Amino acid sequence: MNLKIAVLPGDGIGPEVILQAKKALYAIGEVYNHEFVFEEALMGAVAIDKTGSPLPEQTLNLCLNTDAVLLGAIGDPKYDNNPNAKVRPEQGLLKLRKELGLFANIRPIKPYKALIEASPLKREIIEGADFTIFRELTGGAYFGEKTLNEEGTHASDLCEYSEEEITRIAHLAFKSAQKRRKKLTMVDKANVLETSRLWRKVVQKVSENYPDVKLDFLFVDNAAMQLILNPKQFDVILTENLFGDILSDEASVITGSIGLLPSVSLGEKNALFEPIHGSYPQAKGKNIANPIASILAAALLLEHFGLTKEAHVIYKAVEKAIEYKVVTVDLKPDSKFGTNEVGEFVSNFI
Amino acid sequence: MNLKIAVLPGDGIGPEVILQAKKALYAIGEVYNHEFVFEEALMGAVAIDKTGSPLPEQTLNLCLNTDAVLLGAIGDPKYDNNPNAKVRPEQGLLKLRKELGLFANIRPIKPYKALIEASPLKREIIEGADFTIFRELTGGAYFGEKTLNEEGTHASDLCEYSEEEITRIAHLAFKSAQKRRKKLTMVDKANVLETSRLWRKVVQKVSENYPDVKLDFLFVDNAAMQLILNPKQFDVILTENLFGDILSDEASVITGSIGLLPSVSLGEKNALFEPIHGSYPQAKGKNIANPIASILAAALLLEHFGLTKEAHVIYKAVEKAIEYKVVTVDLKPDSKFGTNEVGEFVSNFI
Ligand SMILES: CC(C)[C@H](C(=O)O)[C@@H](O)C(=O)O
Ligand SMILES: CC(C)[C@H](C(=O)O)[C@@H](O)C(=O)O
Repeated sequence: MNLKIAVLPGDGIGPEVILQAKKALYAIGEVYNHEFVFEEALMGAVAIDKTGSPLPEQTLNLCLNTDAVLLGAIGDPKYDNNPNAKVRPEQGLLKLRKELGLFANIRPIKPYKALIEASPLKREIIEGADFTIFRELTGGAYFGEKTLNEEGTHASDLCEYSEEEITRIAHLAFKSAQKRRKKLTMVDKANVLETSRLWRKVVQKVSENYPDVKLDFLFVDNAAMQLILNPKQFDVILTENLFGDILSDEASVITGSIGLLPSVSLGEKNALFEPIHGSYPQAKGKNIANPIASILAAALLLEHFGLTKEAHVIYKAVEKAIEYKVVTVDLKPDSKFGTNEVGEFVSNFI
Repeated sequence: MNLKIAVLPGDGIGPEVILQAKKALYAIGEVYNHEFVFEEALMGAVAIDKTGSPLPEQTLNLCLNTDAVLLGAIGDPKYDNNPNAKVRPEQGLLKLRKELGLFANIRPIKPYKALIEASPLKREIIEGADFTIFRELTGGAYFGEKTLNEEGTHASDLCEYSEEEITRIAHLAFKSAQKRRKKLTMVDKANVLETSRLWRKVVQKVSENYPDVKLDFLFVDNAAMQLILNPKQFDVILTENLFGDILSDEASVITGSIGLLPSVSLGEKNALFEPIHGSYPQAKGKNIANPIASILAAALLLEHFGLTKEAHVIYKAVEKAIEYKVVTVDLKPDSKFGTNEVGEFVSNFI
């Protein structure tokens, strides 16, 4: 297979972890005779620094014309604590999601056997947990109108949803549930928000096409609690953009480290693969960032293009790295292995 | 002291748990020579059933003219799964918060030594955790304009904040931090939301009045993770309405049961005390609901009126109940004690 992949390393630890993902893909390409062509481009704070824009035209065009996008991470504290910054790295990511129409972000959550002890949660709570979060990614408060009055004393964010936006991701989530344990939990705040009530109504309607899937509803405050009290109850979770942002980061604690979790964002025509962690600027250049989430993002990319066998070789390699404790300090505080060593281990295993 | 207290038992398990809180207050009154006069009124689904309104005029007037409000819980599934219901129990609660100007909801989180094992989190993670969440309660998406188009295919919720709304709760939170470990963590989503950027700016400004308090910022997705990874890092958390709703329910897992946590909502003139749990309709009338959160809400009420010694007697009684394992099934699955027995134990101890 020939694949042209746009690579956006981004900020902070982005470039280091993406390098390891590329190494894994090169190794797969060699062994299984595929050609992966990588084209790098700028996005995030690094793009602002070099071009003034967090998502330069050139980057967007590249992404629109490749088979897939592999993203590192974006964000820089110099923008976070400056509420007056007019241009911010996150705008690049949000614009990219919108322009590529990446309406569904999918995050699988499943603890590794060898890492059960690394979680802050007790073994009996997480052992056997296995669920997937479907987060709507191009709507809600992220993209609604924002206002700030002239005096800078009053601000607003509009959260909007249409039936269409809800329907398309609901179908994806139900289809996924059909292939899993046939349970879908819709998370919302329907006792307060109008958009949540629309979500409930539309999801109920869509569910009629999937009579084999059991649908239930949970308020987001309760869901935030249930994820920790009893994560095994979940199979597929479906929710809107901001709730999905919060709950999927929260759910990462089940696996012991956010450094282990990849995600895929899907649109009608495009797909983007990334680790769910952020740019972690404090760790930049120190060879301590966990590359596993990025390597697994590469595996999700392979699966997306039907290269299931190849993806599974990567999963196996990652499992072995974890089993042999070739992991970074987030998973083993006294580890002598760094980003590079973990990446080497995985690509050598392939 | 003479106190006139409006009691709103509400729905589900509300009446049962509030009864135990009243028993504790009666006992305190007898021993320490105070007169507590309770006036009951309707709110929630029970008020809709009887009057058509979730917050009848009469209830509101009563609450406006008493020293404090003691609330059970509200909510009924028959409204939750009906997105078309025009009148809902929650509207009563939201209107009450607004009319009484209860802009700050305060939830202390601290695990009981005897219950450390009841938490899904490991002992070393939660032992020593002790923080308070300040949640803004009368602004944000809860109260902004809501729309649904005529075809029922497009909905919106507006999240709004003004400098004034942020300033007043920020002062409360900083003052609390000064009396504690002098650390305040502002939780927001300033990399995406305009209202969050206003929060950051205003809180930074208010912080200049409290140079002894260390201020830091956390994005809400990261905060949802940090609460579980390392809750000991927090002292005072300050956040907007919806984030506070999610995070404070999530934080309840640290204590092992949401059935243990009370909260107080403060305005310029009024104060409302309640357990943070919901109406838990499945448990209604079964004598299995945990009354401790309501009893502790009564203790917070006493503290609010300067009756510190009396409040501490209740804390002591609750600690003893927990120590002697006179607790409901949420804390001890094979317990033979129910709502009534736990309440009896506490009021007898007083
Ligand atoms: C960087 C930020 C804008 C982004 C989001 O909130 O969507 C991130 O937290 C994520 O989850 O991908
Ligand atoms: C019942 C509901 C409207 C309420 C809220 O969201 O504020 C509840 O969850 C709470 O936290 O008091």
